[in-house]
Amino acid sequence: MDVDAAWLPAEAFRAVGRRRSLVPAGGLVDTVRRELVDACERFGGRVVREDAELVFELTEGLGEEGFALTRRDGITTVTASDERGLLYGLFHVVRLGEEAFAGDRPREEHRPAYARRMLDHWDNVAVHPVMGQVERGYSGGSLFWADGRARGDWERVRAYGRLLAACGINAVTVNNVNVHETEARLLTDRIGDVAAIADVLRPYGIRTHLSVTFAAPVVLGGPPTADPLDGAVRDWWARATDAVYGAIADFGGYVVKADSEGRPGPFAYGRSHADGANMLAAALEPYGGTVHWRAFVYDHHQDWRDRGTDRARAAYDHFTPLDGRFAKNAVLQVKHGPMDFQVREPVSPLIGAMPRTRLAVELQVTQEYTGQQRHACWLGPMWSEVLGFRPDGEVSTGRLAHELVAVSNVGDDPFWTGHPLAQANLYTFGRLAWNPAADPRAILDEWIALTHPGADDRLTAGLHTVLDGSWSTYEKYTAPLGVGFMVQPGHHYGPGVDGYEYSPWGTYHFADRDGVGVDRSTGTGTGYAGQYATPWSGLYDSPATCPDDLLLFFHHVPYTHVLPSGKTVIQHIYDTHFEGVAEVEEARRVWTGLAGLVEPARHARVAERYEEQLRGAREWRDQINSYFLRKSGVPDERGRTIY
Amino acid sequence: MDVDAAWLPAEAFRAVGRRRSLVPAGGLVDTVRRELVDACERFGGRVVREDAELVFELTEGLGEEGFALTRRDGITTVTASDERGLLYGLFHVVRLGEEAFAGDRPREEHRPAYARRMLDHWDNVAVHPVMGQVERGYSGGSLFWADGRARGDWERVRAYGRLLAACGINAVTVNNVNVHETEARLLTDRIGDVAAIADVLRPYGIRTHLSVTFAAPVVLGGPPTADPLDGAVRDWWARATDAVYGAIADFGGYVVKADSEGRPGPFAYGRSHADGANMLAAALEPYGGTVHWRAFVYDHHQDWRDRGTDRARAAYDHFTPLDGRFAKNAVLQVKHGPMDFQVREPVSPLIGAMPRTRLAVELQVTQEYTGQQRHACWLGPMWSEVLGFRPDGEVSTGRLAHELVAVSNVGDDPFWTGHPLAQANLYTFGRLAWNPAADPRAILDEWIALTHPGADDRLTAGLHTVLDGSWSTYEKYTAPLGVGFMVQPGHHYGPGVDGYEYSPWGTYHFADRDGVGVDRSTGTGTGYAGQYATPWSGLYDSPATCPDDLLLFFHHVPYTHVLPSGKTVIQHIYDTHFEGVAEVEEARRVWTGLAGLVEPARHARVAERYEEQLRGAREWRDQINSYFLRKSGVPDERGRTIY
Repeated sequence: MDVDAAWLPAEAFRAVGRRRSLVPAGGLVDTVRRELVDACERFGGRVVREDAELVFELTEGLGEEGFALTRRDGITTVTASDERGLLYGLFHVVRLGEEAFAGDRPREEHRPAYARRMLDHWDNVAVHPVMGQVERGYSGGSLFWADGRARGDWERVRAYGRLLAACGINAVTVNNVNVHETEARLLTDRIGDVAAIADVLRPYGIRTHLSVTFAAPVVLGGPPTADPLDGAVRDWWARATDAVYGAIADFGGYVVKADSEGRPGPFAYGRSHADGANMLAAALEPYGGTVHWRAFVYDHHQDWRDRGTDRARAAYDHFTPLDGRFAKNAVLQVKHGPMDFQVREPVSPLIGAMPRTRLAVELQVTQEYTGQQRHACWLGPMWSEVLGFRPDGEVSTGRLAHELVAVSNVGDDPFWTGHPLAQANLYTFGRLAWNPAADPRAILDEWIALTHPGADDRLTAGLHTVLDGSWSTYEKYTAPLGVGFMVQPGHHYGPGVDGYEYSPWGTYHFADRDGVGVDRSTGTGTGYAGQYATPWSGLYDSPATCPDDLLLFFHHVPYTHVLPSGKTVIQHIYDTHFEGVAEVEEARRVWTGLAGLVEPARHARVAERYEEQLRGAREWRDQINSYFLRKSGVPDERGRTIY
Repeated sequence: MDVDAAWLPAEAFRAVGRRRSLVPAGGLVDTVRRELVDACERFGGRVVREDAELVFELTEGLGEEGFALTRRDGITTVTASDERGLLYGLFHVVRLGEEAFAGDRPREEHRPAYARRMLDHWDNVAVHPVMGQVERGYSGGSLFWADGRARGDWERVRAYGRLLAACGINAVTVNNVNVHETEARLLTDRIGDVAAIADVLRPYGIRTHLSVTFAAPVVLGGPPTADPLDGAVRDWWARATDAVYGAIADFGGYVVKADSEGRPGPFAYGRSHADGANMLAAALEPYGGTVHWRAFVYDHHQDWRDRGTDRARAAYDHFTPLDGRFAKNAVLQVKHGPMDFQVREPVSPLIGAMPRTRLAVELQVTQEYTGQQRHACWLGPMWSEVLGFRPDGEVSTGRLAHELVAVSNVGDDPFWTGHPLAQANLYTFGRLAWNPAADPRAILDEWIALTHPGADDRLTAGLHTVLDGSWSTYEKYTAPLGVGFMVQPGHHYGPGVDGYEYSPWGTYHFADRDGVGVDRSTGTGTGYAGQYATPWSGLYDSPATCPDDLLLFFHHVPYTHVLPSGKTVIQHIYDTHFEGVAEVEEARRVWTGLAGLVEPARHARVAERYEEQLRGAREWRDQINSYFLRKSGVPDERGRTIY
């Protein structure tokens, strides 16, 4: 198979493959066994029945998916209470390499922070005339689907499952939340296609989920209504779900985008989103399935003239009154920020405001607004910040929500992710979902070491350099100070400062000749800041205490407003935009210097992307700077060229 | 057939249908005969062999398509030197109605000013994923094509041909100038589809033309190059053209968009556009065919930072050096303005600058930038101005160019044109192509009378009112003072003030906090004004003498610049935008008052469109006014609401 090995090159298994290993048989453990057999074939070890140096054992007390590692008397032992725990333990040993076999090690226990660590694929079965095969996909076609049918490349799906297991992901939704005509039928007569994917992913501890349309009964020949309180509708869903579990016994459940951006939902019948979600939850409940109900509900027919309506408020305003009304197996899936995966947003105030509801936080691994895998932008630090946020301002090592979900960045591209360095985002998401308290930079180094076994210091340092600061770099040359959007409408790539300024989508910056930003304060603004608990509401409510990087998200300020740095807002805009481009130039220079140390095709692909990133960064810099110079009339203090 | 009769309702033939008519037989005259027979059946007249009140006769001396009308001794006589002349004479008599049979009439002669009066259909054979069945079409699907095949609705095509003949159009191009894969094959194995259309249009005096791709030899399995000086390529085209004429003996010729917006062309081979056009002209010459070579060649990868490059200059700069180098049967097809069918543009300086080249002026009947047939915008006055322009500033009744071409606004909509009032645009184009010196308002009244036979004064006056000023109204609420664009990218509907401001398409307004407009003067600007001959170059070159309505096309001026009206530019912007909306409100009111006088379905359709036009006009007003208020900081003198 002509696909990149990503973070599982054969060489990464050298330490394991040199050992005599003992592993029980049966079920998912066979996946562990197969990994060991393959590695030993290559590196000279053996899978044995006794006298092993590496022992895998099932035992009690470690919980679902957890595992422990010890090394004593020359024997490294992985114990777990279920088979998935052994699988995760194996990949832990792979990550440790020779270190797992050097001297004694005190017992260490590992348990996932989030029980469900899920990837949503926005993959269409039939090519959508505007959105293509994969909506917001920047990595070619879909792994699962091609031109209206199952793609049937099961070796690649298997390799994908293996990569996901190695970073800890245990649930996958196989189709886009925007469910069109062809995709609707996956629920019924085309469930076999889903079952085939589930069969391939199951050995890697991954459960399969399905996006469904709320209008399924209507569009699939059931009752002429989708009213969630209608008995015939409930029966239809119960029967449909029976059939799904007949085909996939460990099916994970449904994902639904309802009453959002034109999708059908319970509003049409005067029912609440709790009514809608609970109907599906009831159908899934007998089988232990879950419905993921997306909270991305807002008015996308807003009037830009009306400064009182605020899209940022929508999810909170809409869902908090429903707290406590969702079934136990209904999960409300909330985007991490109140808008839509911008390079910088505050954490959604909905998170923390629904204590009696199961919440999943949704991140976006696919780089829709962060360079679309043509720009290097490693999102680990952003996610780490989000996952470390506590609605009450307290420090805690616990979870931010009940589950973690992300939109996949993978396609049929030979490098999986279009930009080879974007593999790091997928890996980091999985590892943070397991342990959100981990230092993202340590995860980055882990990814570097696994992906490039035997890398010398120069390569390791170079890779770390170009990725570590890349999110900050991207932020510098795009929309400033948390204001967001300023992208081209539709495809969302490249600058369009006023692209959404007079649009019905509710995404504004209100720049005029005097200042810029959205007043979301409680006094003079939309009141959004008041949706937060103390201390955040107070901090965000005043320009004096609002964090710089969110200043324009919360406040409309004059261009002459002075930031804590001592710079005015306008000078900050100019400076960061020049800096951002300089940082891309530097990253490109570093990358060029790694030629010869990285596999040539990979090096060439990344080098190409840097050309485009540099072109794009300059375009962003010049459009943003020119826009604000033309509007403010304030010249750059340093006299640089602004067009 | 459930299609609107447009300007040929049966009732329009009452006067003719009451008479005894004499008409020769054979050829195209049979079309005249059939019209007379149909009309007489309905209204009691007869086609007779003697003792006629209305006589059609072939005679010498009236030239191609010309005709004469006389009435003496109770006999109305139409004479012509060819059959088409008789056909146009018939429709002239229809327009006159009873007036053609009242008292004596001195001999009047009518000859078309333009020998070719052509409509280009931007119809795709296969539905284009972005552009749909008809590119820039706002009237449903195509008359000719559906989903990759000939549509086969020949009755509708026949009715279309009849409407075109009745307004004087005599040439039609059946497919889009952007020729994709399916359309390319119309030239070869699918020429039968074109022949079938030609057969239906021929009785109405219409010749059929075909858009071809310059890369045809390559994409259709000929030589691996399309180099126009390559012998094998020339042979391929000669053979292909032989076959075309085998299928359609009176085939009109090819239309080509080359080296434009991504289309292939001779540049790829280091050849000139004259080389490219002449190769096709050579293939067509033996059969009397013509190649129409579009002059819409410009750099659509411009850099907005570079204020020296000016898209407006492109056609002139590119084509004037080729003057005298095009074959006799090659026609250079030039858009009437230097940009792209904006609501206001100067006449292209290329027209008049190529005395040794046959030129066709291209107008756009489809309302791409003038409301997309959702807004009423009758373009007669605009075209009349264009056609009355003389490059040397002299007064002349002659032609502006050799031919007149327009992009069709017709589709499979029951009203033909989406907006029923947009029928007036198609009719007006045809009539102006016959006689560009005609008063467009008289043509409008002619259209009103034909379309609504027996209309009372209130209806006639109402229709005249809502259409007569509609172009000026549209101009008032959209981009001001000739600056152009400010539309949403891609679909071009609705305001997007900065939509193209930082784009590679070369369409800028350069608004900053002090002023707005494009400096195209010879002194400080792009020099475009210097492409005109005296007196225009001088007039356009100075803000003091430049016509108001083109001020921002030629000059960048401060918002405080005072217009001859005594208003500042900024106040002019505010005032015209409020006026434009008020005028739409008034037109809607007038239209509402016509209920009961207009056929109900037609009235309802127009009423719906007025709702959308009013919504759209308010959106334009508010976005433009807010944009300039935010930028200039100058308040409205009259204190009206600007958001």
